[in-house]
Amino acid sequence: MKNNNKKLRIVPLGGLGEVGKNMMIYEYGDNILVVDSGIMFPENDMLGIDYIIPDFSYLKSRSKSVRGIIITHGHEDHIGSIHHLLEIVDAPIYATPLTRGLVEVKLARNQLLDKSVLHTIKAGDSTRIGPFFIEFFHVCHSVPDGVGLGITTPAGLIVHSGDYKFDHTPVDNWPTDYAKLGEFSGREVLALLADSTNADKPGWTPSERVIDPAFDRVFRSAEGRIIIASFASLVSRMQQVANAAERHGRKMAFAGTSMVDNAKMARRLGYLDIADDLLVNLDQALKMDPAKVVLMATGTQGEPTSIMGRLSTGTNRQFNVKPGDTIVLSSHPIPGNEEMVYRTINRLFRQGANVIYESIAPVHVSGHASQEEIKLLLHLVKPKYLIPTHGELRHLKQHATLAQEVGIPAANIATVENGQIVEFEDGEMKLGPRVPGGYVFVDGGGVGDIRPSVVREREALARDGVVVVSLVVDSRSGRLLEPPEILSRGFVYQKNGSDLLDSARQQIVDLIQDSDGYLQSDIEQSIKTFFFNETRRRPMVFVSLNKV
Amino acid sequence: MKNNNKKLRIVPLGGLGEVGKNMMIYEYGDNILVVDSGIMFPENDMLGIDYIIPDFSYLKSRSKSVRGIIITHGHEDHIGSIHHLLEIVDAPIYATPLTRGLVEVKLARNQLLDKSVLHTIKAGDSTRIGPFFIEFFHVCHSVPDGVGLGITTPAGLIVHSGDYKFDHTPVDNWPTDYAKLGEFSGREVLALLADSTNADKPGWTPSERVIDPAFDRVFRSAEGRIIIASFASLVSRMQQVANAAERHGRKMAFAGTSMVDNAKMARRLGYLDIADDLLVNLDQALKMDPAKVVLMATGTQGEPTSIMGRLSTGTNRQFNVKPGDTIVLSSHPIPGNEEMVYRTINRLFRQGANVIYESIAPVHVSGHASQEEIKLLLHLVKPKYLIPTHGELRHLKQHATLAQEVGIPAANIATVENGQIVEFEDGEMKLGPRVPGGYVFVDGGGVGDIRPSVVREREALARDGVVVVSLVVDSRSGRLLEPPEILSRGFVYQKNGSDLLDSARQQIVDLIQDSDGYLQSDIEQSIKTFFFNETRRRPMVFVSLNKV
Repeated sequence: MKNNNKKLRIVPLGGLGEVGKNMMIYEYGDNILVVDSGIMFPENDMLGIDYIIPDFSYLKSRSKSVRGIIITHGHEDHIGSIHHLLEIVDAPIYATPLTRGLVEVKLARNQLLDKSVLHTIKAGDSTRIGPFFIEFFHVCHSVPDGVGLGITTPAGLIVHSGDYKFDHTPVDNWPTDYAKLGEFSGREVLALLADSTNADKPGWTPSERVIDPAFDRVFRSAEGRIIIASFASLVSRMQQVANAAERHGRKMAFAGTSMVDNAKMARRLGYLDIADDLLVNLDQALKMDPAKVVLMATGTQGEPTSIMGRLSTGTNRQFNVKPGDTIVLSSHPIPGNEEMVYRTINRLFRQGANVIYESIAPVHVSGHASQEEIKLLLHLVKPKYLIPTHGELRHLKQHATLAQEVGIPAANIATVENGQIVEFEDGEMKLGPRVPGGYVFVDGGGVGDIRPSVVREREALARDGVVVVSLVVDSRSGRLLEPPEILSRGFVYQKNGSDLLDSARQQIVDLIQDSDGYLQSDIEQSIKTFFFNETRRRPMVFVSLNKV
Repeated sequence: MKNNNKKLRIVPLGGLGEVGKNMMIYEYGDNILVVDSGIMFPENDMLGIDYIIPDFSYLKSRSKSVRGIIITHGHEDHIGSIHHLLEIVDAPIYATPLTRGLVEVKLARNQLLDKSVLHTIKAGDSTRIGPFFIEFFHVCHSVPDGVGLGITTPAGLIVHSGDYKFDHTPVDNWPTDYAKLGEFSGREVLALLADSTNADKPGWTPSERVIDPAFDRVFRSAEGRIIIASFASLVSRMQQVANAAERHGRKMAFAGTSMVDNAKMARRLGYLDIADDLLVNLDQALKMDPAKVVLMATGTQGEPTSIMGRLSTGTNRQFNVKPGDTIVLSSHPIPGNEEMVYRTINRLFRQGANVIYESIAPVHVSGHASQEEIKLLLHLVKPKYLIPTHGELRHLKQHATLAQEVGIPAANIATVENGQIVEFEDGEMKLGPRVPGGYVFVDGGGVGDIRPSVVREREALARDGVVVVSLVVDSRSGRLLEPPEILSRGFVYQKNGSDLLDSARQQIVDLIQDSDGYLQSDIEQSIKTFFFNETRRRPMVFVSLNKV
């Protein structure tokens, strides 16, 4: 497993199936460069899990070798686990100003800011980190100030796209750096690692600019208040709302701490251009003529504790939905969140709002390259090898198909999963060993103490509930000293269930009376069978048999 | 609440938010016509629930008034609760031949076939049921032999679309009956109740026929076996696969009981035209040259026990995925199933198959009308009033918007939710009382015994698990007679957790030792606080305090 000195090793890590999205490791000799350190959100059947981080096992035994951590952009799936990473790795962090700002917020929240070393880099800069010479180039994405990386290693030049799209008319007027990508190709790119998120979407992802006319239509026809929901990191969306507010004579206010904080930081750093007199605070906004104001808030995923979630159930603290409100969800449901999002939309309608969302009007666009852009990147960079990244296996396979269409031989494409090492030596790619590349659950204060077996127990509990039986018996005769005590949760509605539990009690009394000798497991089995026959359900049954 | 003799009452019922999808009640005097009796699938957070049926409360007190039950088509959301309905209502069922076949399968499975009265009707037929004169007209949908209804009531003519689309080139060459719809408009339609499922989809739903060229591409390029997954009721898809198999010189086999049974019935009734020599049974198919065979199977929603689910994990009994297999998911994920479906696709890729699904190629189309079709229906029928049905509130609102665009005044549109009675008298529509229109959970053998409070308990159990503490103390002194017994499930991984549980045991020993008097609730609270401080989790804690 030890890496010799002439090999470049690439190790994709990440939560769930999205290969290398949350972390990518570049290793040469005993030098490691970490790119990104994000989180994933749990799937619906990962019960009770707060979030998921990459398995850091590979790094744990090599933590002294880590020379630097580059964060490509400020989204949670790229920065969200940085505080967990810093518990095992002591290395400087490199990020662009806005990304650094978002990283610092996270570090501060975890009391790590003072102990961390951060370097600001900018697109166009280059820096040396151990044996790696990094050239940062600008990419468009749904958060500003994202970068891709040209990594010159002793084994060759690697291009790491990060999350990107080719937006010709981005809101910040800063297109992806085509020239740099072309320049790389002139220097012979050994391998490209590129975003596969939208590899199954035909065509070209629309420009963020298409949102402007959609916003104009909303602003023109809305007679009351406008509330626009978006991610707190979507700085360009804030800009678009501000521009629309200005065009249509409305004042703008932010609701919610994360939105307020991020807007403040983005304005300070110059990523958000909003005139002072356009902004009002939330209190002022709520007192104004509804036709003269637009609010921005979070909660596009229908999270029950977010502002949108609370507005939908009429439990928001500072304000409620008023009939005549127009609510715009400028977002796309994260896979798995569809039900929650649509339920929130239905509830907002019920509260009297007119709700405008992606399927009604183009109020959101993706931040990832579609098929024609993916092919363009391949033509611009002309890599010898391709490692499709940032996607589930189905996206990577589709990316590989696209690459073959533009002339990359199948043998030069490594469609690998997390933990599968890819090695480069003498200009050749081959698969290396496989290392732990799975994910680690974070639940409450615990990191990794919830294993799949615990989640399976939660599934069983969630499916049919639990029944607790407590018995006190004479240790010699085995006879009951007290009537059996039975409690249930999540099994039957108590009012209807009391007959059922009474019968179960009688069942136990009979069993103990008729039996010459019995074990705790006999009682457990008898109760389980009884409940299954009566209800066709299999609750988890605990029998505590106290012999005194 | 009693209905007088001159009013027509319409009561939409259904599971979840989809208005009137699972059941619609038409009532005049003491005569009730029930249209459809379906189920809904539970959402991801309805833990452990098998399926959901409409709340039949309104019918329970009026069961003697029910004159007939019409089933518009054979999908589960329209027929799935018929056996529950027949427990409270004794009335004849009316359905077209194919729909009747599917209903009979369900009744037979519930030992109700012998006790039921079924009438076969056909599109173009008319029949009188109490004061209602019903004209059945053909509609295209994703199962053949669907009908809509013209219901002439003493209060006026109602048109009930059922699930429909305007497919100009349906696979069975039987388009929706435009002429009949136009004819209705000449007789003054009082109200239209129409499908809103795709009210937020612009344009026109593609014809099922677009699947043929997509299948041709798959059959041309597949070098090995082809496996096509679809719903067991999608008879037209079976026909398309059979046609493609014939064009490309492959034999066809069905896998799975429901697929085999439905195909047999559809062939017998003349809805499926497959030559005998095109079909082979599964055993034969598995022995043939892979390039000469196509299998059809169920499991498009990634259900773990379906054939696709089992193929994806390598646990299917009769056959497994072979490298070189091409698997086509000819389907769309039901909202809420996305994660499961995509996980299954990723696993099938991992097993070595090439997987083709909706986002890769047009191997599936919707069975519901999109915006232009919805507007066409409104123009064809020219109703005075509109009740948008078959959709969540967001779809109904969008349907209402479309209707206003084509000239129906907002005041003539009733965007109502389940249980909201709509009444018609003297040619006027008004809202009536509201009756229970929610849903009833079916879990195992229980119907309605799982209330939301039980689901909330399951949620709590699923979030943080359960801890069971059993104590035996002296009834006089209150001192422990045995060491505390603590068990947990779904809370911590036992290996890591044993220290934690040891500390909790000590916590209890200390509490009891130091206390002059304590209650069960004191111990419970102390344990809860201890676990929360240690883990930031809140397991459900049961303390059984046995005094002897």
